[in-house]
Amino acid sequence: MSHPALDALTARFGARIETGQAIRDQHGAGDSWHAAAPPEAVLFAETTGDVSEALAICHAHRFPVIAFGHGSSIEGQTQAVQGGLSLDLTRMTRVLRVSAPDMDATVEAGCTRQELNEYLRDTGLFLPIDVGAHATMGGLASTRASGTMTVRHGTMRDRVLGLTVVMADGEVIHTGGRARKSSSGYDLTGLFVGAEGTLGIITEVTLRLAGIPEAAKAGLYSFAEIAEATETVVEALQCGLCLNRIELLDALQMQAINAYNGTDHPETATLMIDMAGSPEQVAADLETFGALAEGHGAALAPCESPEAYNALWTLRHSALYSARALRPGAKSLSTDVCVPVSALPAVIAQIQAEIAAAGVVAPLHGHVGDGNFHLVMLFDGPEEQEVVRGLHSRLIAMALEAGGTATGEHGVGLGKKLYMQAEHGQALGIMRKIKAALDPGGILNPGKIFDL
Amino acid sequence: MSHPALDALTARFGARIETGQAIRDQHGAGDSWHAAAPPEAVLFAETTGDVSEALAICHAHRFPVIAFGHGSSIEGQTQAVQGGLSLDLTRMTRVLRVSAPDMDATVEAGCTRQELNEYLRDTGLFLPIDVGAHATMGGLASTRASGTMTVRHGTMRDRVLGLTVVMADGEVIHTGGRARKSSSGYDLTGLFVGAEGTLGIITEVTLRLAGIPEAAKAGLYSFAEIAEATETVVEALQCGLCLNRIELLDALQMQAINAYNGTDHPETATLMIDMAGSPEQVAADLETFGALAEGHGAALAPCESPEAYNALWTLRHSALYSARALRPGAKSLSTDVCVPVSALPAVIAQIQAEIAAAGVVAPLHGHVGDGNFHLVMLFDGPEEQEVVRGLHSRLIAMALEAGGTATGEHGVGLGKKLYMQAEHGQALGIMRKIKAALDPGGILNPGKIFDL
Repeated sequence: MSHPALDALTARFGARIETGQAIRDQHGAGDSWHAAAPPEAVLFAETTGDVSEALAICHAHRFPVIAFGHGSSIEGQTQAVQGGLSLDLTRMTRVLRVSAPDMDATVEAGCTRQELNEYLRDTGLFLPIDVGAHATMGGLASTRASGTMTVRHGTMRDRVLGLTVVMADGEVIHTGGRARKSSSGYDLTGLFVGAEGTLGIITEVTLRLAGIPEAAKAGLYSFAEIAEATETVVEALQCGLCLNRIELLDALQMQAINAYNGTDHPETATLMIDMAGSPEQVAADLETFGALAEGHGAALAPCESPEAYNALWTLRHSALYSARALRPGAKSLSTDVCVPVSALPAVIAQIQAEIAAAGVVAPLHGHVGDGNFHLVMLFDGPEEQEVVRGLHSRLIAMALEAGGTATGEHGVGLGKKLYMQAEHGQALGIMRKIKAALDPGGILNPGKIFDL
Repeated sequence: MSHPALDALTARFGARIETGQAIRDQHGAGDSWHAAAPPEAVLFAETTGDVSEALAICHAHRFPVIAFGHGSSIEGQTQAVQGGLSLDLTRMTRVLRVSAPDMDATVEAGCTRQELNEYLRDTGLFLPIDVGAHATMGGLASTRASGTMTVRHGTMRDRVLGLTVVMADGEVIHTGGRARKSSSGYDLTGLFVGAEGTLGIITEVTLRLAGIPEAAKAGLYSFAEIAEATETVVEALQCGLCLNRIELLDALQMQAINAYNGTDHPETATLMIDMAGSPEQVAADLETFGALAEGHGAALAPCESPEAYNALWTLRHSALYSARALRPGAKSLSTDVCVPVSALPAVIAQIQAEIAAAGVVAPLHGHVGDGNFHLVMLFDGPEEQEVVRGLHSRLIAMALEAGGTATGEHGVGLGKKLYMQAEHGQALGIMRKIKAALDPGGILNPGKIFDL
């Protein structure tokens, strides 16, 4: 028998409420090791008004609602663990406005960063959130995503100026605005960014864009030991270079990348860096960085052409998929932590020693300019899964011990819930109070971030 | 008869609870035109534990608590409009830790930015929040302050990594941490930053510092018309120059500054700019900026020496006091709005026309790289006050109409409460829900930002 909420949704939205198994299955799984949990139905929303009406119905019936974009989240954020409605926003892809002089734009939540950047092509502007996934703006905002350019351009927290949000009961609010800064009341924009759809559903996003730099040059630096690479990072950050990206890949990750892409880079700890600015500044800062890296024994391979530059960053973005390809058929627990940069060498050394002792295949890559790194831990079967989960918990304990966080950019979802108490202590109770105040029926993405 | 809360506070804190008239008067007024409203008592807290115990007592007795630093807020944030306890944090001035490699520090809330920067003197680091006032870190965080260097370094929202906060009932929480970024749960740090002490009392602040640049050079550019100056700003921002500051002062403000400081700069619309970076970059970007400014007919006066550089920024920071000195004995309504940069020329032209028509003396200065500017409107007597308040409302209406905000950096306090509904609409109800959830007794800085 159908849930009365579904009847009401179908009465309102007709064929846009889909209940076919295939579409439900697709909406019940992210890009992760977490068990799939299909919703009872999927609604393809086309406007903020659709979202508002759907939420009003679900609120009245205490029916869960999970916002869905391209399903690229990797901590189980989109799984419908308590059933309910998956609210698909991928039909809301419009770029609503762009201001070149103010370097900002407003887009609908289903617009991807690739679509926005394509739209902006002739303006000299772009959104400097460079994640590997083909992700929507709503998803990027909701997980407080960041990617490779954070060291220069910040995270979604820094790029989102304002939002349109539909609250649990269907009320539509607008947060922030287009001013570059504001001291006007509570920072609701910042509260919804990173809330993973548990406090409201984002339908429109106003973004600060960046200017495409006059010049950009990249290089690949191979180190004998990973500690030499991380120490180079710490030194480079203190020099105030015009770094646009500074990415670490360990020997196993380089081996995976070579195998996956047919390349032949040295299979040793590697930094891929990108400088952006004026041609003179880029040249000078690349030289400074090269000297630092050489001081740590690195072999240098600067990219001499725009083609080589693009090829390098395409390689970098293959890190996750190449890692998974190391053990075809195995599952992968892809995790990320973020620590103060000075703690990187010790934390990486310690977790890699424990990984080696456990005999787990787990390549490492990360946005080390932020102190953020990922491990893709491969496992096959329940016994290996237990080992991998144990290492995962150890990694997070080390990160917290170092003053860091259980997740730098993937979010909490289902995968990091266990660690929220350890990270936040009493502050977790404050998060719960805010959740109860804004979603008293607990219908918005229930079971994510923390349990009530 | 004494309030039972005061008896309980006195029983716990003894002579640290002060009730003398002079000290209450000092704690009941900020640096503003708002009427003074002295608290019933002042507690000089020395530890987070003191704050926690005081709040537990006040919470039990429903007794208002207003956090107090150096009393430099200018929208009436520290006035005890419902009586209660002023909680003075100026004895909590310790720098608790500094990490040079991570470029971060943790300080107690009563530490001023000047004290922190003095402490950091030998590290090559500084806190790039350059406001005119001698303000504490708790106050800077609570008003989401920014100042002249925002165009490069962001606001307190961008600089605060973590907080220790005492909640209304005395519970102590820790938000954020030392990681450069995090996707771990709700952004409580961002929620308390800018909340003006209405959601909790900040007792410790962890800050992202910045490196002192290798080179910095400043210059003063005089324009025939203010529109020529604002158009230069819009163009300069799109060139991606290494701007550290870009400040606008109108003709009247320059007249005030000359009179106050005994200088003889041209009394016309002026940009004061500061470039920071490598010596080559600074030289190249100053030249580019000079060419842009000359294209708008500006006369250039670069600062050739470090002394001239420092003198220029000392002059700039005299803007408020020099403005007030234009009419000795008059009061001043000092306000700030922030708009998209492209809207600056039109908004400034429109409000200045209305100010001129009303015959009000109101010099203008601002951090125009952020679209943020201040007017100091002088008035004497109730009749002039009415005219000035009318202009104030007009200014905010224009800013909101342009997609901006009623306050870029001063905060809401008492002075901007009237405009919160117009700016935030339905979102104001969400702020009220959060307030009710975290401070159900309404004891934290009651009557500020919005009424319950």
